[in-house]
Amino acid sequence: MYCFDSDYLEGADERVMQALAATNSEQTAGYGEDPHCERARRIIRDLTKCPDAVVHFVTGGTQANLTVIAATLRPWEGVLCADTAHINVHETGAIEATGHKVLALPQVEGKITAVQVLESIVAQREDRAHEHCVKPGMVYVSHPTEMGTLYSKDELCAISAVCRQNGLCLYLDGARLGYGLAADPLVDLPLLADLCDAFTIGGTKAGLLFGEAIVLPSQKLQAEFRYAIKQRGGMLAKGRLLGVQFAAMLAGGYLVERCARANALAQQIKKAFVDKGFPLLSDTAANQVFPILPDDVIQKLQRKYSFSHWQAMGGGRSVVRFCASVTTEEAGVAALLRDISFL
Amino acid sequence: MYCFDSDYLEGADERVMQALAATNSEQTAGYGEDPHCERARRIIRDLTKCPDAVVHFVTGGTQANLTVIAATLRPWEGVLCADTAHINVHETGAIEATGHKVLALPQVEGKITAVQVLESIVAQREDRAHEHCVKPGMVYVSHPTEMGTLYSKDELCAISAVCRQNGLCLYLDGARLGYGLAADPLVDLPLLADLCDAFTIGGTKAGLLFGEAIVLPSQKLQAEFRYAIKQRGGMLAKGRLLGVQFAAMLAGGYLVERCARANALAQQIKKAFVDKGFPLLSDTAANQVFPILPDDVIQKLQRKYSFSHWQAMGGGRSVVRFCASVTTEEAGVAALLRDISFL
Amino acid sequence: MYCFDSDYLEGADERVMQALAATNSEQTAGYGEDPHCERARRIIRDLTKCPDAVVHFVTGGTQANLTVIAATLRPWEGVLCADTAHINVHETGAIEATGHKVLALPQVEGKITAVQVLESIVAQREDRAHEHCVKPGMVYVSHPTEMGTLYSKDELCAISAVCRQNGLCLYLDGARLGYGLAADPLVDLPLLADLCDAFTIGGTKAGLLFGEAIVLPSQKLQAEFRYAIKQRGGMLAKGRLLGVQFAAMLAGGYLVERCARANALAQQIKKAFVDKGFPLLSDTAANQVFPILPDDVIQKLQRKYSFSHWQAMGGGRSVVRFCASVTTEEAGVAALLRDISFL
Amino acid sequence: MYCFDSDYLEGADERVMQALAATNSEQTAGYGEDPHCERARRIIRDLTKCPDAVVHFVTGGTQANLTVIAATLRPWEGVLCADTAHINVHETGAIEATGHKVLALPQVEGKITAVQVLESIVAQREDRAHEHCVKPGMVYVSHPTEMGTLYSKDELCAISAVCRQNGLCLYLDGARLGYGLAADPLVDLPLLADLCDAFTIGGTKAGLLFGEAIVLPSQKLQAEFRYAIKQRGGMLAKGRLLGVQFAAMLAGGYLVERCARANALAQQIKKAFVDKGFPLLSDTAANQVFPILPDDVIQKLQRKYSFSHWQAMGGGRSVVRFCASVTTEEAGVAALLRDISFL
Repeated sequence: MYCFDSDYLEGADERVMQALAATNSEQTAGYGEDPHCERARRIIRDLTKCPDAVVHFVTGGTQANLTVIAATLRPWEGVLCADTAHINVHETGAIEATGHKVLALPQVEGKITAVQVLESIVAQREDRAHEHCVKPGMVYVSHPTEMGTLYSKDELCAISAVCRQNGLCLYLDGARLGYGLAADPLVDLPLLADLCDAFTIGGTKAGLLFGEAIVLPSQKLQAEFRYAIKQRGGMLAKGRLLGVQFAAMLAGGYLVERCARANALAQQIKKAFVDKGFPLLSDTAANQVFPILPDDVIQKLQRKYSFSHWQAMGGGRSVVRFCASVTTEEAGVAALLRDISFL
Repeated sequence: MYCFDSDYLEGADERVMQALAATNSEQTAGYGEDPHCERARRIIRDLTKCPDAVVHFVTGGTQANLTVIAATLRPWEGVLCADTAHINVHETGAIEATGHKVLALPQVEGKITAVQVLESIVAQREDRAHEHCVKPGMVYVSHPTEMGTLYSKDELCAISAVCRQNGLCLYLDGARLGYGLAADPLVDLPLLADLCDAFTIGGTKAGLLFGEAIVLPSQKLQAEFRYAIKQRGGMLAKGRLLGVQFAAMLAGGYLVERCARANALAQQIKKAFVDKGFPLLSDTAANQVFPILPDDVIQKLQRKYSFSHWQAMGGGRSVVRFCASVTTEEAGVAALLRDISFL
Repeated sequence: MYCFDSDYLEGADERVMQALAATNSEQTAGYGEDPHCERARRIIRDLTKCPDAVVHFVTGGTQANLTVIAATLRPWEGVLCADTAHINVHETGAIEATGHKVLALPQVEGKITAVQVLESIVAQREDRAHEHCVKPGMVYVSHPTEMGTLYSKDELCAISAVCRQNGLCLYLDGARLGYGLAADPLVDLPLLADLCDAFTIGGTKAGLLFGEAIVLPSQKLQAEFRYAIKQRGGMLAKGRLLGVQFAAMLAGGYLVERCARANALAQQIKKAFVDKGFPLLSDTAANQVFPILPDDVIQKLQRKYSFSHWQAMGGGRSVVRFCASVTTEEAGVAALLRDISFL
Repeated sequence: MYCFDSDYLEGADERVMQALAATNSEQTAGYGEDPHCERARRIIRDLTKCPDAVVHFVTGGTQANLTVIAATLRPWEGVLCADTAHINVHETGAIEATGHKVLALPQVEGKITAVQVLESIVAQREDRAHEHCVKPGMVYVSHPTEMGTLYSKDELCAISAVCRQNGLCLYLDGARLGYGLAADPLVDLPLLADLCDAFTIGGTKAGLLFGEAIVLPSQKLQAEFRYAIKQRGGMLAKGRLLGVQFAAMLAGGYLVERCARANALAQQIKKAFVDKGFPLLSDTAANQVFPILPDDVIQKLQRKYSFSHWQAMGGGRSVVRFCASVTTEEAGVAALLRDISFL
């Protein structure tokens, strides 16, 4: 059985495992104040061309999201996002548990627009009862999105401009950022450092055992952020594990290289379905593909492969999701491609 | 330079690293619903002789504490603990951030008593304005404590009895539990499963890269606990990493065996100081020792060793802490013993 | 200038003011433990035919909502409601500030249905990632709604049945309940006590200076509720003020009588607009009316009257709101009616 | 039976009731945006000689405390106060429910000192693990204190200076401020506006039916404060009630005049006990007195009077509390004085 359900099915990339083994018996300071974390931070500052960025490492994505958002907003502020956003639907109310409303907007292919953001800001500001309404204080976007799609450079620039002009922070959830960087080189790390007040570089789904890097290019979020991490339970005692892993994965362009390979595998799967005449939910360019398949085809494939049921479409068809990742083995993809071709 | 500052200076025990490497390319379900976590749960249920216990794994100790406490208490309930308790002094207000007051009690050698607990309960209950006071809903004890000391079986039984008779939950923070189990076999896992509504088995400080097991022997905390873990950011995507590590460390009595070794190393260090006439803050039996040393001795030792400054004592003396752990190398201890003997 | 903007423009009903004056120099216990509150509780238990109901009094509606909801839900539970619900749009995120997600549903004329509630429950329960989603724990309905409409007895019975069968609590926000009781006698207090786990009887908008009664027919919410009130800041020191006012307003059917008068005034205003050919946003039966008026008519009326702008409709027209209340003077209504007739 | 248990036993001062009755049928805007609130704000700005102060009115003291504190602190900051502080012991964990730790300090006669504050700040700042500790972000003092005592001008100046030098806010809970102003004219409103970032002028215990004024002399707390009030449930719909009452009570020095009368009554009671040889818990100068009485004397007095049991002292004696207030009738005091003299 080969599995394509998600991008966190295997352990870590070989290089990451080697780095962990090689450093295992070293003695270092805890809580992220060690030379490995320092090295990983330096690499990220170089890659983002943002020498003043503050970089922290936490254990997981929900942890990163709730820590950044709770550390940023005043109590009566909320966070604008797509109604499909991870923070809105798949974090068990983690943001609300820190006291803040998630202000969900209708989306197209998982994305929201600068115009929607502006309209929300203006509507609240001009409401006669505006003090009775939650004030938008931040915009959250995922890149790639939960639907596998990508924001273009122009789209992100427009959202960022609206945020800046209206005093909102922009936070980009990069749980799958490596795949995005590999798929569209125009949206690169220096651009994100320019546009965002905070963004993450996901490790869990891109070759690490676990871990997300939180990048804070903006001075206004930097102060006392380690307090926030500790308070929310995201500060790892053996913090160097995150530094070791990120340094191994980020050095020398390795992350993007490995993500590009995964994207290519996913695109082969997508093409195989399209070649057989199956439509797509949306034409994704990174490591997730969403074919719409008849239920009998799904059942046939399920005998040898596992993948995610995404949503029923009526008429005996469903959207399913296939993911490739940094750690996906090519043998499985080859077998799948062959079986699709014989459908 | 050999370091004895804490018990999270190195990576993982050899056996744990091997298990991670051996399972690295496996594909499993995420979020703790994999065979490795199942196996680790089975081992823990066997060791605790509590077949109905529910077991979860989270990334760290603060994460475990805040998740258990927030999932247990009603909004107006607080948690009784020693004023030296980790949740009171070293978690950046993580418990309060979930809405609950930490009700700190004066302690002796890091421990509170059943009588103190009962007095607190009665005082609140009999206060004419009791509804204006936080209601004690849980007792938190650490074993070993933050001062390196151990609760006796009788002490824990007495606290548990008071809790049961008054409807409070008892939660034992076992961040260093392995060392406690090795130091006093009377306080074993079946006893804890009998006495506590929840307790943790610490992995981070006892041979794992990271991770704590939350054991819930009591049905009243079991329902929907995975929601709590996800909401607080403690649910690891590649959850099997925690199962793999705990299974490797717990199988065949390995954890206690390795912790016994660490305790023995720590006790050698303790004895070396005592033999030279230095007093102790308290006569600890597990892996932390707290000699009281003159400042010139401290400075001399600091040239070759690092260790924690615990508290100034006046008169040119300070309490310092030396820790040994599962991953401490014996060469460093041997060197230290020799240097102490020449002081 | 006569004002019809809202139902909290004046002070209290004459009878309420007299009761406050008559009891002003009495000495009583504080915090709601006085004979006046006891008397008001007795009246409410009689009116609801629910001798076991627990009744509390708090200062305002947002206070009541956040206290009831936070006292009821587990941390990972949310509250289902109409997207127009007061808790979703006009309480500055007060519910989220207690840690809970508001699960907003599309509405028709401010109302949600039993089917929508059931679908939401089933969708979450059957989601493969259900522990990653907020669990619906309560349904919130307003009666009358924020759009001035009323739930029918059948609608409420159906929602209550779905809640009971699925273990959710039903909470009815009765900020304007008096007007609802007067408009539809089928939805009476005994019915609400039967169907709801909690509901409020609004005082602020119905003749009191301030104050809401929280009625808890259901034993599961009753325990320790006074702790919740105190913790959230809703416990009035001179608590008897609320008992005095509610007793004065509720005794002898006075509340419904006065609300019926207000409804009648509002209905005269509605009829006057309809008679002139102006459409309504919805055909409300209680104390709020929502005519759709051309902007020039609005401007003309604004010279002598104030009223609320509700929403722009395009084509030079807007929805506006006129309210009548227990304390509305008939002279103002008479003048308005005359002026409408000359439009 | 005459009652001296507390200062919230009766309704409102005569002048306040008249003002409420006189304005009862007026129509005004809601939520504190009416001419009466504006007038009360103007009076307070004049009295504090602080034309830039922002003034808000909320319903009660716990409401005021939790709103000010939650609006001020970052998530990982806590509030330093006496361990007897109302927020620490008698608000059911209201501050923790907003996410913040109450950092309780030992007190003498209910008061803390500038030195204690400084030591706490320095200890946290210099802790090697300072990011694992709650950061002091605010100092809370009550004046008069919960023990009936008063801070001197010098004491408050010293605390304020430490706060300013270290970036903490100073918040003074003035639930009984009128009595304090009457007892020590050196600690006047302009001084408080100079020293504090926020303070309250209590209405509930000083002649109003209910209500506290929050005074924000400091610009850093002023922005968006109305959002905080609404979110926490403290914004009164018929907000003018608070303006009407405060204007009536504050105009022309009436509050201090009436509080001076109450202080004089309390001091007569104190003197009567002292003259009979009974000791005091502390020699309070305002409206609360704390004699230490033998239990048989307490029982004898309880036949005709009620008063608060404060704490048992051993040896068959207890501390009790007698309060006088703006609305205390002199006949009761006269009777009590006579009965004390015959003890």
